[in-house]
Amino acid sequence: MPILEDLKWRYSTKKYLDKTISDENVFIILESIRLSATSLGIQPFKVFIIEDKSVREQLRIASNNQSQITQASHVLVFAAWKHIDNNMIDAYIHLIAKTRNEELVSLQSFKNMIVQFVKEKNPSEILEWTSKQTYIALGKAMFCAASLKIDATPMEGFNATQVNTLLNFDIQGLHSSVILALGYRDATNDKLSHKAKVRRPASEFFESI
Amino acid sequence: MPILEDLKWRYSTKKYLDKTISDENVFIILESIRLSATSLGIQPFKVFIIEDKSVREQLRIASNNQSQITQASHVLVFAAWKHIDNNMIDAYIHLIAKTRNEELVSLQSFKNMIVQFVKEKNPSEILEWTSKQTYIALGKAMFCAASLKIDATPMEGFNATQVNTLLNFDIQGLHSSVILALGYRDATNDKLSHKAKVRRPASEFFESI
Repeated sequence: MPILEDLKWRYSTKKYLDKTISDENVFIILESIRLSATSLGIQPFKVFIIEDKSVREQLRIASNNQSQITQASHVLVFAAWKHIDNNMIDAYIHLIAKTRNEELVSLQSFKNMIVQFVKEKNPSEILEWTSKQTYIALGKAMFCAASLKIDATPMEGFNATQVNTLLNFDIQGLHSSVILALGYRDATNDKLSHKAKVRRPASEFFESI
Repeated sequence: MPILEDLKWRYSTKKYLDKTISDENVFIILESIRLSATSLGIQPFKVFIIEDKSVREQLRIASNNQSQITQASHVLVFAAWKHIDNNMIDAYIHLIAKTRNEELVSLQSFKNMIVQFVKEKNPSEILEWTSKQTYIALGKAMFCAASLKIDATPMEGFNATQVNTLLNFDIQGLHSSVILALGYRDATNDKLSHKAKVRRPASEFFESI
């Protein structure tokens, strides 16, 4: 079962080699994110690829100085929408109509449903919901990377306020949700790379009803 | 690029055939969830496999009567931990020690870090954080299913309070986070199965800095 071998092979990489992921593989990982499912299909987030060295340095400082931020080949910041207004919903409805060659009128009830869904949530509930959608994509990107034998580090340990400021998210209505570093493990210097994966046994983790 | 073909093939299935996923494939999907990364590695959730027909019927009622709940081959409910106490942290630390044959004393600083992390969060922040971890696993399970050409429906549209009561989650300190139906699409009757996937173009979804 190669799928499970890939998933057992992966771990949260602490130290990376100075080795760059090929453009083709970067494309595949980004596409796995872009194709990811989101609730209502609205894709309420953007993904920033941090290439600038100086921005990487500052991002590292805002991330408890975790070295992966500057060492990894690629660093992605998932930025969740902080609010959803009618223009954003309209843009999505128009995208559906265009992609599927459908009449806008046939999408009216779906649009009304989204408007109602959003109206029932306060700003913090909206952000919680949009952030969760980034985590589905995070899971997909990690799975995709493992399938390509590319290492990854999902990272929550950063100061979101500082990252929002650094990347000008506030003015764009975005909030830094989670970071994913990608690259190739430095197996010689990353002692974690040789340690057994710690997971509860299936008998404790699953329950049939 | 077979990975991307699988991800393009998948969609949020609305109608399922009466066809059961093999035990081997169920095992692989469940393992993809159990092996999923979680923040701090603590796996703050459980996954329930709903097999009982009567429970499925009631779950469907609590889920806006979405037919996938009773039609799909398998239905998983991700149940996030509502709180994290010292016993749970201790159990995790002991699991690390046992799995890696390490001394407990060498894990003390990691344990202290988790205790501090939890202490700084209020109950709703804890639940938000544990729920997000289930979404990583959800993404992995969906990717895994697509790789096996098994269809899936991620579902948020349920009454969490009702589901918590139905599945006795309250007494277990759990909260229903998200549901995943799994099975085989009924392509003849599911009109969505033939529609184009709607995603924003990469130029709008990604940004390099």
